Amino acid sequence: MNSTDPAAIRQAVEAQRGFVTRLFDQLRADGLDEPGVTRDTYGPGEQRGHATATAAAQQLGLAIGHDAAANLYMDWAGADPAAPVVMMGSHLDSVPHGGNFDGAAGVVAGLTAVAALQSLGLTPRPTVSVMGIRAEESVWFEVSYIGSRGALGTLPEGAMAARRRDTGRTLAEHMRDCGGDPDALAAGHRHLDPARIAAFLELHIEQAPSLVAADRPVAVATGIPGNFRYPNAVILGQHDHVGLPRRFRTDAVMAGSEFAMALDAMWEEHETRGIPMACTLGRFHTDPAAHGLTIVPGALHFSLDVRAYDEAVLAELDERVSRIIAGIEQRRGVRFELGQKARAAVGPVDPTIAAALHRGAAALEIPVIELGSPASHDAAAFAASGVPVGMLFVRNENGSHNPREAMSIDDFLAGTAILTHWLAEAVA
Amino acid sequence: MNSTDPAAIRQAVEAQRGFVTRLFDQLRADGLDEPGVTRDTYGPGEQRGHATATAAAQQLGLAIGHDAAANLYMDWAGADPAAPVVMMGSHLDSVPHGGNFDGAAGVVAGLTAVAALQSLGLTPRPTVSVMGIRAEESVWFEVSYIGSRGALGTLPEGAMAARRRDTGRTLAEHMRDCGGDPDALAAGHRHLDPARIAAFLELHIEQAPSLVAADRPVAVATGIPGNFRYPNAVILGQHDHVGLPRRFRTDAVMAGSEFAMALDAMWEEHETRGIPMACTLGRFHTDPAAHGLTIVPGALHFSLDVRAYDEAVLAELDERVSRIIAGIEQRRGVRFELGQKARAAVGPVDPTIAAALHRGAAALEIPVIELGSPASHDAAAFAASGVPVGMLFVRNENGSHNPREAMSIDDFLAGTAILTHWLAEAVA
Repeated sequence: MNSTDPAAIRQAVEAQRGFVTRLFDQLRADGLDEPGVTRDTYGPGEQRGHATATAAAQQLGLAIGHDAAANLYMDWAGADPAAPVVMMGSHLDSVPHGGNFDGAAGVVAGLTAVAALQSLGLTPRPTVSVMGIRAEESVWFEVSYIGSRGALGTLPEGAMAARRRDTGRTLAEHMRDCGGDPDALAAGHRHLDPARIAAFLELHIEQAPSLVAADRPVAVATGIPGNFRYPNAVILGQHDHVGLPRRFRTDAVMAGSEFAMALDAMWEEHETRGIPMACTLGRFHTDPAAHGLTIVPGALHFSLDVRAYDEAVLAELDERVSRIIAGIEQRRGVRFELGQKARAAVGPVDPTIAAALHRGAAALEIPVIELGSPASHDAAAFAASGVPVGMLFVRNENGSHNPREAMSIDDFLAGTAILTHWLAEAVA
Repeated sequence: MNSTDPAAIRQAVEAQRGFVTRLFDQLRADGLDEPGVTRDTYGPGEQRGHATATAAAQQLGLAIGHDAAANLYMDWAGADPAAPVVMMGSHLDSVPHGGNFDGAAGVVAGLTAVAALQSLGLTPRPTVSVMGIRAEESVWFEVSYIGSRGALGTLPEGAMAARRRDTGRTLAEHMRDCGGDPDALAAGHRHLDPARIAAFLELHIEQAPSLVAADRPVAVATGIPGNFRYPNAVILGQHDHVGLPRRFRTDAVMAGSEFAMALDAMWEEHETRGIPMACTLGRFHTDPAAHGLTIVPGALHFSLDVRAYDEAVLAELDERVSRIIAGIEQRRGVRFELGQKARAAVGPVDPTIAAALHRGAAALEIPVIELGSPASHDAAAFAASGVPVGMLFVRNENGSHNPREAMSIDDFLAGTAILTHWLAEAVA
């Protein structure tokens, strides 16, 4: 039997439905935190998820490994140990009260693809490694791609000192608790050599409703956005009495609102020009210790995330944001203190891999669309290190990063079938 | 000697400089809470202020009284007990970490005017009552004019159930702790009969820099603004992933910022037309339990205070705000939940009193300007009950409701001399 026979692959993947359902159910139980699921980065939620993935991999006979960032590697040994490794996977952590599938679906898909090819009696030439990545959700430490960049040795300086928003403890402390070696990472250690990786494939739920709108189960990624971020910025004016005339005020809320409207207009303009981007003021708040009904607000704290698919666009947006701020400072007499700036590079998708995924989808008769990733993904960290990457998005209702996230197992198995078809070719 | 002789009055007021300084120093010590002063409404800070004012009044031989709202009355008995009472005073509470003079200056001025006329050997025909008013700073309970409206029996229904923002305890509980009788107030009891009050005069620091800009020590009020307020409003959209395209978002921060900009434009337009007003979004914040760097904000909480000097203008502004909200709800798919609405009536100044104050200032050779009150004041509650009111503002640097508030004692004595001149005529 030809192991890339589309009908056989669909059937072999379909046969894993029970494995898939049990794995997702256990992962949901691991992070249950009503409403939704909390698999906290380098905390008990993520730890339980790693234990569950490990047990499932052992059931498939895979070898278990870890690196200094406490990432999980589940390896199906290949016939040719010298051949560059074929990697699949995604992250196992979640936002607080998020959904069950964001991240975890990519790990389950990787394990399912392996199980399906095993059931077809295939032995891979290169080793296949399914990775359970740590700490992708930057809501916790406000550092991007901690797990994947930790594996690749590309974490930014000072990352180990970042503090988790809720516990106040450092990344180094949290990582050590989970069996990691933050000192090795701080010294520049890398576990993965990009030259030794043939490809990294990540399946992920779509974090926008484009597939729902297009009535398609799966999309093939055209690219992963890069971003620049100011996690902890503040606009400083002066707190004053509510009766102060307009001309005497330096009102931080009015300045912040003008900033928000300028960003919104900038985005609308790019939308009109057909240039995909996004900007988000996720946190936006007056000072709880000083604000009040009868006080002109003298401080507005905010976080800003700006993302795009092209480094040139990102650079232009960065420049535009600076000009917007300068104008508001001049007009309104306030001062912006932007604080630390974070950057994540744009993650280009490998065209050969994308073409192979489209070919597989056609062979399997699964209708797909092309889609620029709405969100950031670990695959971008691999791409930035020179690893050829590809991504598949699975239809998902109600957005992600919230408990109403909803993916059907049928759609998941369709995406996983495309992944499996690609894997079968890649390891042949 | 004529007791309204301008030179004699200036000298008699100047002679109270030591009394004034000691009283302000003790009031500062009563509320010291670095940075600034906290005389918390129906709490220990305000209580100590009342004890200090009481002691100063007893030193002047005044009779001490209280009402169901625990307001303080310091009475100089008149020769004709049947004559309507002449009242002066202001509030003794402050905002958290506020200045020492906001409110207290009006009580000290009333006591100083009495002391000055006593020193000139005058006996008043009507009784003169200096009032230490409770709970003017609505930052604590978010109800306007609790003390003065409590005395006049005009508190809104349900006020006793309002909770102090910091303690979470009800106004009834706090009032009872301070010797008040909330049940009597809730049953509609009033201590003051407006028909039995000849006038209410309030001296207050200016809460804007108009006198500083005009280089004048004192202003005579032309009116006190009324307001409408939404202390606890919220804009509801949907929390979503940071990668969600613009057309799918219902972003509460963008909706709130559009709201703020529309209010700002409305104010600018009124400024241009010469119609005084103010609007303030004092609290303006995403949900601390749900917001994050990588989450589209689905909720924005805010407080709104809109004030003007004319009931017709207030009504027009109210209508405009409703139309702005309807437009944003339609365009951005969000929902505004405005919560409870509070109202305070515009406080017109009695033209006869204003004319008398101007006449006194001219006689005393103190240069004054006319000024619409930037802020709300207890005098407005008296005016709303039909009592003839007047107000004097004293120059003040750096605004109020903050620790940098700064009034010179020279300016204070100039304002108090005008008040004393008026009192001498009023009680003759």
